Amino acid sequence: MLVRGEMLIGRASVRGTDSVIRALDPANNAALEPDFGGGGTAEVERACRLADEAFDSYSRTDPEERAQFIEAVGRNIASLGETLVTRVMAETGLPGPRVEGEMARTVSQLNLFATVVRKGLWRDATIDAGDPQRKPLPRPDLRMQKIAIGPVGVFGSSNFPLLYSVAGGDTASALAAGCPVVVKAHGSHLGTSELVGRAIQKAVSDAGFHEGVYSLLIGEGNAIGEALVDHPAIKAVGFTGSEGGGMALVRRGQQRSEPIPVFAEMTSVNPSFVLPAALAARAETFARAFIDQMTIGVGQMCLKPGLVLAIEGDGFERLRVALRDALSARPAATMLSPNIYGGFMHGVERQQKGSGVTELGAGSEPAKDLDGQVHVFEVDAGVLLHSMELADEVFGPAALLVRCRSFDEMLAIAGRLHGQLTMTLQMEVADIELAQRLMPVLERRTNRILANGFSNVAEISYATIHGGPFPATSDSRFTSVGTSAIDRFLRPVCYQNLPPELLPPALQDRNPLSLWRIRDGELMQG
Amino acid sequence: MLVRGEMLIGRASVRGTDSVIRALDPANNAALEPDFGGGGTAEVERACRLADEAFDSYSRTDPEERAQFIEAVGRNIASLGETLVTRVMAETGLPGPRVEGEMARTVSQLNLFATVVRKGLWRDATIDAGDPQRKPLPRPDLRMQKIAIGPVGVFGSSNFPLLYSVAGGDTASALAAGCPVVVKAHGSHLGTSELVGRAIQKAVSDAGFHEGVYSLLIGEGNAIGEALVDHPAIKAVGFTGSEGGGMALVRRGQQRSEPIPVFAEMTSVNPSFVLPAALAARAETFARAFIDQMTIGVGQMCLKPGLVLAIEGDGFERLRVALRDALSARPAATMLSPNIYGGFMHGVERQQKGSGVTELGAGSEPAKDLDGQVHVFEVDAGVLLHSMELADEVFGPAALLVRCRSFDEMLAIAGRLHGQLTMTLQMEVADIELAQRLMPVLERRTNRILANGFSNVAEISYATIHGGPFPATSDSRFTSVGTSAIDRFLRPVCYQNLPPELLPPALQDRNPLSLWRIRDGELMQG
Repeated sequence: MLVRGEMLIGRASVRGTDSVIRALDPANNAALEPDFGGGGTAEVERACRLADEAFDSYSRTDPEERAQFIEAVGRNIASLGETLVTRVMAETGLPGPRVEGEMARTVSQLNLFATVVRKGLWRDATIDAGDPQRKPLPRPDLRMQKIAIGPVGVFGSSNFPLLYSVAGGDTASALAAGCPVVVKAHGSHLGTSELVGRAIQKAVSDAGFHEGVYSLLIGEGNAIGEALVDHPAIKAVGFTGSEGGGMALVRRGQQRSEPIPVFAEMTSVNPSFVLPAALAARAETFARAFIDQMTIGVGQMCLKPGLVLAIEGDGFERLRVALRDALSARPAATMLSPNIYGGFMHGVERQQKGSGVTELGAGSEPAKDLDGQVHVFEVDAGVLLHSMELADEVFGPAALLVRCRSFDEMLAIAGRLHGQLTMTLQMEVADIELAQRLMPVLERRTNRILANGFSNVAEISYATIHGGPFPATSDSRFTSVGTSAIDRFLRPVCYQNLPPELLPPALQDRNPLSLWRIRDGELMQG
Repeated sequence: MLVRGEMLIGRASVRGTDSVIRALDPANNAALEPDFGGGGTAEVERACRLADEAFDSYSRTDPEERAQFIEAVGRNIASLGETLVTRVMAETGLPGPRVEGEMARTVSQLNLFATVVRKGLWRDATIDAGDPQRKPLPRPDLRMQKIAIGPVGVFGSSNFPLLYSVAGGDTASALAAGCPVVVKAHGSHLGTSELVGRAIQKAVSDAGFHEGVYSLLIGEGNAIGEALVDHPAIKAVGFTGSEGGGMALVRRGQQRSEPIPVFAEMTSVNPSFVLPAALAARAETFARAFIDQMTIGVGQMCLKPGLVLAIEGDGFERLRVALRDALSARPAATMLSPNIYGGFMHGVERQQKGSGVTELGAGSEPAKDLDGQVHVFEVDAGVLLHSMELADEVFGPAALLVRCRSFDEMLAIAGRLHGQLTMTLQMEVADIELAQRLMPVLERRTNRILANGFSNVAEISYATIHGGPFPATSDSRFTSVGTSAIDRFLRPVCYQNLPPELLPPALQDRNPLSLWRIRDGELMQG
């Protein structure tokens, strides 16, 4: 399968005529073949109208049929094999093993959502038996299920060109919910997007579903994305990217005549709290692991650990030395795009000019245009408390070490941090009491708390939460990773005293989908 | 217990000094004793700071303890007895039996949320077992529960001074979730608010909880409410009222430096689709029941049926005559407040001046200043399709009958309606096929579909959904009535590889709360 530079609108391949766009190989900062024809509002209109037309049939598909379709998407992606891996590598500068791993995880994420569709717990099927004899009023027969919210717009992320892009977590969870999807391809991996988009397009066609179940749009600048969020047929949006981009879409979604939820996963520094006994026991091991983790994917990860807090003393000095040692030989590496490289350099400069901030160490000098050099900065907690913006994310291989004079100062910083995707405790048994004091503070500021590990790489599973209070995400009540991601795209519908002929399968007496249901307040499989 | 005209801030009774406000008896349009001292931003600051301080301890209360507290709130309200009933009647013009019924439902709603707290299904407790031996990476131990989102601001509704006000559904569900609550009292039932507020304040004190679990603010105009939504300690808001008021708060919540969700339940005309066989079989019975239902509470109900669609012919003419007959002797009755009366008169005038709208009939002339007269208007579907605003809600005893030339025209109107709290099918067996064609259209536009009944009075239960696509509410994914209302005020937190000492009870291996949990994807009680 070749990249042809086209959009996919329903079953059609469409060459846009509004602009000519090239993908870029960041390793040599050179344009890649072929030219892409960028679309405009006419293509948004057509894709969204098709999605709207597809909604009634797709949202009512039998769970088994929908699950098989989602699995077919995964198989089609897997069968792209080397073609896809090569294109992703060229467009992102990511190394082969990382791309292959991400491809495998993309497929297994799709398979997990197929399992979710079959199990049907997401429907929250609930039945309250009626009682026509009740006085003074009869008790109605009430049945509730969750259904798809409507067509969903998805904005792929640049840093996970497969796992959180065209057929990534947002698309997988929206398709699982029963929502047709219109994706705005990320400009930094256009060819990847087209290849994966065709894999979905083929699965839609093979399943015999309405063509509007899936479309892929490309375009220059923000016009296509804005038109997508504005389109009346779109009822929810998933986005992964910067706070600026995310909040622009969130506010746009709220300003529509019919406001819609835009779930944006945006920014996090994923603080690590190194407690005293852990610091004493393993300052060096932690330091080496930390540098390994903060440089995964050239630091271009939502889950990059970017902030370390520890209490001053011998252990702290050992940590400083070990961090510097681990840093020094660390090579610079190609960043995803000129845009991200520019943002990184801007962030590094902010830290370098920050009053009271010093540079603890840096990795090897960059050799090429878009190479990101590793940096670790250092600041006193007292300084940070007065300039909390120093703790804001620098997207790329940079981190900040915070010297606290006491545990109380560490606690004070924790209480001032913005919402985060994750927070990590590095602790030994002797640290339990301090950790217990931190827990309520952390729980209010993050949706995932780890002990003695690193947040980087989220396990995609049932208990996974990848979300957090603002600005980590736009709505702390939801997650964009893990099976609960489906909840973003569902709404409850209650059916009162309906005749059996009108009841959806999930709520029929004989329980044809074999669902767990809540009956008169009690969970049962029947 | 006497009404003293005070705010309740934590354990303190506070007389505001920013304004002097009087409650009004709408039956004679006269001010009621005593004077209330309105507060300002200083009181908002104090109440919200206390709520923030109360959060950590209250959100961690043992479920049994929290449930008993919520039940105590109910008992304290019930023990107000005649004092409360008399005050509500004086402030709202609502008749005694309605007020007594609403009081009983308020108590049973609190008891239901106590049951919900004990059962703990809302926690969605989920455990994925770790696997340290997994290759290439160990599988982490992941555990997830939902916790309280933070302190919640509540705006009481004017039309349910008990059931959806100070200790109503928003407060009950927020307290059940573990959120401290700060209520802005509705200006049209200040004394009611104080009495109920003191019942909660006493329960907080008797339970030995932090005083900040509950506060009640009163104030003139919008300043207090705006300051409440703006306060950094407030993490979510529940509102029931007009679309204008609701959307102002929703947008305000979104414009904060840390945006928060404002769940607003706003407007709905709750259309009834009278299908042909039902029309033929029971035009007269339906007409009488409809007029009964649309005049409950002087039509001042979110769930008032305000729109009837039927297909022209003999049955339609019988329906018209029967509606007019049922209307003619219907008395005018006291509306809740001058503000609501004014809005009603404005809405009636809009229909009277509407091009192509005729008045089918009206009830008895009003005898007093704030009496609302019953009106039913009539319009052709063809006219409505070009002026859909004629179908917007008129809050009060007014309704619109729509004459469709065909089922297709009825379907076309259904497809153009705004989001609604409920939609109702009036149908016989012979109407099944048409009803099936309507179902997908209705499901996209409402969160509750009824057959052969009326939406008025929502059963407060497990499967109850009182929500809907915009503008029925600000977020169709949630409900403000029924046990799922708690979901608005919860966020998920994931705990990865935490030592047992740091795990919350809901996620400990021995399952001390005896919860249903999802373990490795399977529901089990263990």
